[in-house]
Amino acid sequence: MKTTGYAAYSADKPLAPYDFERRELRGNDVAIEILYSGVCHSDLHTARGDWGPYTAPLVPGHEIVGKVIAVGPEVEHYAVGDPVGVGCMVDSCQDCDQCDHGEEQYCRNGMTATYDSKDRITGEPTQGGYSKHIVVREEFVLAMPDGLDLSRAAPLLCAGITTYSPLRTWNVGPGSRVGVIGMGGLGHMAIKLAIALGAHVTVLSRSPSKEKDALELGADAVLISTDKDAMKAARNSLDLIIDTVPVKHDVTPYMPLLDVDGTLAIVGQVGPMEEFMTPPAIMGRRRIAGSLIGGIAETQEMLDFCGRMNILPECEMIKMDEINTAFDRMEKADVRYRFVIDMSSVDAPAA
Amino acid sequence: MKTTGYAAYSADKPLAPYDFERRELRGNDVAIEILYSGVCHSDLHTARGDWGPYTAPLVPGHEIVGKVIAVGPEVEHYAVGDPVGVGCMVDSCQDCDQCDHGEEQYCRNGMTATYDSKDRITGEPTQGGYSKHIVVREEFVLAMPDGLDLSRAAPLLCAGITTYSPLRTWNVGPGSRVGVIGMGGLGHMAIKLAIALGAHVTVLSRSPSKEKDALELGADAVLISTDKDAMKAARNSLDLIIDTVPVKHDVTPYMPLLDVDGTLAIVGQVGPMEEFMTPPAIMGRRRIAGSLIGGIAETQEMLDFCGRMNILPECEMIKMDEINTAFDRMEKADVRYRFVIDMSSVDAPAA
Repeated sequence: MKTTGYAAYSADKPLAPYDFERRELRGNDVAIEILYSGVCHSDLHTARGDWGPYTAPLVPGHEIVGKVIAVGPEVEHYAVGDPVGVGCMVDSCQDCDQCDHGEEQYCRNGMTATYDSKDRITGEPTQGGYSKHIVVREEFVLAMPDGLDLSRAAPLLCAGITTYSPLRTWNVGPGSRVGVIGMGGLGHMAIKLAIALGAHVTVLSRSPSKEKDALELGADAVLISTDKDAMKAARNSLDLIIDTVPVKHDVTPYMPLLDVDGTLAIVGQVGPMEEFMTPPAIMGRRRIAGSLIGGIAETQEMLDFCGRMNILPECEMIKMDEINTAFDRMEKADVRYRFVIDMSSVDAPAA
Repeated sequence: MKTTGYAAYSADKPLAPYDFERRELRGNDVAIEILYSGVCHSDLHTARGDWGPYTAPLVPGHEIVGKVIAVGPEVEHYAVGDPVGVGCMVDSCQDCDQCDHGEEQYCRNGMTATYDSKDRITGEPTQGGYSKHIVVREEFVLAMPDGLDLSRAAPLLCAGITTYSPLRTWNVGPGSRVGVIGMGGLGHMAIKLAIALGAHVTVLSRSPSKEKDALELGADAVLISTDKDAMKAARNSLDLIIDTVPVKHDVTPYMPLLDVDGTLAIVGQVGPMEEFMTPPAIMGRRRIAGSLIGGIAETQEMLDFCGRMNILPECEMIKMDEINTAFDRMEKADVRYRFVIDMSSVDAPAA
């Protein structure tokens, strides 16, 4: 199938148009016309080579919402016209303990990422959501719940599940005390989801300038991390901190805010963290954890939860040809809180 | 009560004899003649000022085994002649949720350490086990189980419980896969306790020279951390790593050895840790945790377990006046695996 989109050609060049082929449908494949594509920090990191070299041209995008336009003969759960989503994974071995219990993100044989990965059958590079169409095996297609505004739902597929999964792993519910560090794409979803799960949510911010926005997003409190007295008074007051900061930083000052057995879950920074001091961890059996997106079943659970609770990201809609400006603005954290590409701004290629 | 021992007078001087008074018995106090006193790295760190200034003279020692020589009128569970132990704590508020559920080490109001702390009633400095006698409130006295060789049991009161508690917190039992980093006082106890709990134990060592000793201590396997192929082959193979290394180090290379949701528990290093990389944590929801000794009830459980299973530290007995040489040797890791002071080497002061 012919399609078109925008691709990264090299780390030092802007994204540019790219016409390419999607594979012909296998028996269990779903062909999707992409309507909206969220813009994740990972897209930027990958395209600019921050995480190493890649095979160019590379089409980023793993927050995908669209509608089914064709299905393979073995597809059971989707039909033409269904609203669907695709997140960060498009395949896994489906044959290990992790896949068996629905945590394909930790597949023993390595999950296939939506872009910059290799198709498990042909070895061809996978290409993401900054494109007009995508073809994905049924098991990795999500059903978009009725009533959810599709134009705003795309960021749920990465930012949503990446914050929902640790909230569920660490049993957040009514009465839980959750802190959120960083108020970007991930952070603002962490606030909304934790509130919807019934938690008391405190946003940790370096400057008071974020307070109004945090409260508007639903947070119960804002703690200014440069205010030593406030930080001291808040010791032991949180069960879980979702740390969405996407750059190297020091977690030590945040650790005493956790209660005994509390966890700081890193979901933003993929790379080095600064030296940390062990006493706050030792003196309260506190933990620093990582967490990677979530499994397909959990992603569906999150989407259904967002459907029931009408939880949606705050989005700024852009056209496909505005992506490079959007990247530049993202680097300056100049977005509230997620760019979403309206894929109707791209004309489908002639058949 | 007059007693005598060895004290640190300043960070740059050797320990030297010190005569001092133990408090008169309160209603719930137990007076103990100390028979054996283990020598912990914390004693060395404290005496040398590594953890900050202290009130001198300071008597170190928090691995204490002795016999009861007197009890206050309200004491219910101990009688003169009973073999008893005292660990790292001698008091806590006994009135907070942590104390209520038996985790006095995380007392909301701060536990009272066996030395270099302040008595909760008088404010006087607490003094530790490098002395002929100690007076401790009943709630912080442990019963030594019948049949356990008292001359070797003292290190259980710190090294034992510090490694037993994380093994229990992280549910180690038959089938668990446990790694141990560092094979000193803490590490050798971690091996013995994990084996006794039914785990498969792998010692992680930088050099093959430790292999024989590790196997003699009961370890099932030794993984040489400088062997890249072996490290790669061992990925995802451990549920819990007990990291007993007492100096700044990098945990990054060990994290991929943990299975999904596995934990590296830091119990040795109290201070800064090197920069770490987040991908091994993120890609397997792995955790870095701290853990501090254990509660009194858990310490008693550990002692009873060691009694049943006849688990004892490997000790080198020294006389009190050999303590400074012992400190020097500890700094070079020249001990297998714990020095214990035979307190009969100290004459009691004239009454």
